[in-house]
Amino acid sequence: MSLLVFEPRGVVAFFSDFGVRDHYVGVVKGRILKELEEWDGHSLEIKFIDITHEIPPQDVRKGALLLKFSYKYFPKGTIFLGIVDPGVGTERRALLIATPKYLFVGPDNGLFTFVLREQEPCYAYEIDVKKVIKFPYSSTFHGRDLFAPVVAKLLLREKIETFAKPIEKEKLVYLDFPYPLKIEEGFRLSIWYVDHFGNLITNFSKELADKPFEVWVNNKRVRLVSTYAEGREGEIVSLFGSEGLLEIAIKNGSAFEVLGYPEIEIRYSKGL
Amino acid sequence: MSLLVFEPRGVVAFFSDFGVRDHYVGVVKGRILKELEEWDGHSLEIKFIDITHEIPPQDVRKGALLLKFSYKYFPKGTIFLGIVDPGVGTERRALLIATPKYLFVGPDNGLFTFVLREQEPCYAYEIDVKKVIKFPYSSTFHGRDLFAPVVAKLLLREKIETFAKPIEKEKLVYLDFPYPLKIEEGFRLSIWYVDHFGNLITNFSKELADKPFEVWVNNKRVRLVSTYAEGREGEIVSLFGSEGLLEIAIKNGSAFEVLGYPEIEIRYSKGL
Amino acid sequence: MSLLVFEPRGVVAFFSDFGVRDHYVGVVKGRILKELEEWDGHSLEIKFIDITHEIPPQDVRKGALLLKFSYKYFPKGTIFLGIVDPGVGTERRALLIATPKYLFVGPDNGLFTFVLREQEPCYAYEIDVKKVIKFPYSSTFHGRDLFAPVVAKLLLREKIETFAKPIEKEKLVYLDFPYPLKIEEGFRLSIWYVDHFGNLITNFSKELADKPFEVWVNNKRVRLVSTYAEGREGEIVSLFGSEGLLEIAIKNGSAFEVLGYPEIEIRYSKGL
Repeated sequence: MSLLVFEPRGVVAFFSDFGVRDHYVGVVKGRILKELEEWDGHSLEIKFIDITHEIPPQDVRKGALLLKFSYKYFPKGTIFLGIVDPGVGTERRALLIATPKYLFVGPDNGLFTFVLREQEPCYAYEIDVKKVIKFPYSSTFHGRDLFAPVVAKLLLREKIETFAKPIEKEKLVYLDFPYPLKIEEGFRLSIWYVDHFGNLITNFSKELADKPFEVWVNNKRVRLVSTYAEGREGEIVSLFGSEGLLEIAIKNGSAFEVLGYPEIEIRYSKGL
Repeated sequence: MSLLVFEPRGVVAFFSDFGVRDHYVGVVKGRILKELEEWDGHSLEIKFIDITHEIPPQDVRKGALLLKFSYKYFPKGTIFLGIVDPGVGTERRALLIATPKYLFVGPDNGLFTFVLREQEPCYAYEIDVKKVIKFPYSSTFHGRDLFAPVVAKLLLREKIETFAKPIEKEKLVYLDFPYPLKIEEGFRLSIWYVDHFGNLITNFSKELADKPFEVWVNNKRVRLVSTYAEGREGEIVSLFGSEGLLEIAIKNGSAFEVLGYPEIEIRYSKGL
Repeated sequence: MSLLVFEPRGVVAFFSDFGVRDHYVGVVKGRILKELEEWDGHSLEIKFIDITHEIPPQDVRKGALLLKFSYKYFPKGTIFLGIVDPGVGTERRALLIATPKYLFVGPDNGLFTFVLREQEPCYAYEIDVKKVIKFPYSSTFHGRDLFAPVVAKLLLREKIETFAKPIEKEKLVYLDFPYPLKIEEGFRLSIWYVDHFGNLITNFSKELADKPFEVWVNNKRVRLVSTYAEGREGEIVSLFGSEGLLEIAIKNGSAFEVLGYPEIEIRYSKGL
């Protein structure tokens, strides 16, 4: 197993369910900077980029999806810090995942499911909590007392082996994100994500579309368009969104408000 | 038409209707940094300043006002990235606007109305999408696939002419922000903006007040004070706010919750 | 009285009740950078860390608590800018507080109560508004027109004495955060803070627990656990949180939603 060969450039992309009403997000960042205090921080350029901190509390699935939608757009060397951690303080593992381009830090609860599936090569390490955590520490705020110091160690280019040991990827926790259900003449889709605009993002990706098809929502056919604006005011439309997944949308409106979680099907077009 | 003469210092002021619940804001920033990846990013100091991402979805008017209230307070060389873009993916133009102090990037839908009116000289360019966008790209997320690369080009000091061409300002889209309506003995005001504190910000500016006047809300006279704290608990007051516009406020309360969108009039004081 | 001996490293930790819907937070940051414009900003590494801007409007108590929960985790040299300022524009003092590790800037209304109590040595200065503010300025937005320039002066290492004068700490405004109420067989607690997860953070700290005790909520005993996950689904539990204060929590749920502000008591355990 080879070690990382890139030099971290100091971009820390942070996502969590901490919300922005409390002090948690700021304290984690403060703690990372504090860990670098002794060291000449002036020559290390650290940039915190918040992906989001409004993941619904303890919704690990949503965290995993948001990371999937995000990480490929970040520069080489980015360290992703992901904290959606209902098991904080229990025996759940603390993970470090390394690919040739990126590092990922967070709990072992499925948050990194897509990274582990999509990235090859991809190495997993179990963080040795005793080698990182300092007394006094909190069993309820590992973001501050465990994961922040790990990020600092990575920024300082400490050898991973000094605070973590390799673990087989098969032993990690994965979440199940099933493919669309095959039905007689097409697929029944699941809604993976509802965004801020009320667009319903499904699990149907462009690549699955091997022959002409129609999109049906609650048993009514909807048009497949290529931009949100193509719809008529109030029309329910479908389109492939920015991650290549089929979305249900309404022009200048919220599909979620109108439809909630509707039944969505792909039906193969019938020749005449 | 002269070119820019300043060197961008790497401040990117970003405002949008993306919200902070999803990954969109983080991904745009990640993409800007990724575009600089090949290049020696360590010596370029980039600072992202979020103005807000909570503009109501597709509310271009509110975006234009927020930019008006903000841009003059940023340092020379700031690049403003504004994305409220209901027409994403359609034929609407992508704009770059340059003044001797600032650069502005975003869709041509009126978002830059005030900049275009207030800044002189002020040059407009239409971005040549084909010269910026890379395959594969999304027709629904131009923030990531079009505007982020443009910002990166500006940070790298690429010549604007290599990816955009001058366009006459008269051809651009403007929003109409009318002056207060002249009535017999004064003005009838419009509410331009309701802020987080519930203050009602009107379109009446200090400069229009050429003679003594009174402020009337729903046909009752209210006091004109100079600080929020001057009001009595629960009293409706008026004052000129931080942008010189008349506001209706309630001490330690929300004028919007109490009044909604009331009728507001300026009436000239009558001599005795 | 000695002067500061550390060199500010350019971390500005910012908390306020400005919210993230408006432009206020971005404008304050822009103004700080603009003040440094004349100066060679490239060699000064400034990092803005937002603690939170979602303090409820004018809730100075909550601001004081959030600062207490946060500041110790930031690196030496951090400048804390705190703006929850219902008295903006009135005669309330503008403060600068200096400790050997940190600087604090904001209104004199109790926002810095805990810092003043917990830090020794700790010097207070009254900012001379006339020496900082430039015309035109707003009497409603001191974040932009008064406090931002003060932060810039600190970053530029201007001597504090040139724009502020020492003031006795006894003259400052303090908020009252009382200890738990002593009752016959224990303590009656107050709830200091409800966080985003719905955890109820009380005023009972570990150090007060001098003998074995039980936690009672609305006259029912609840278990004292050490992690959130130890509870059974839906069980009300108590635990010492990340700041050493007793919290009431519900596993995978919101204690606040279920309990609101319940009566919480510490009762000494009775021997058998």
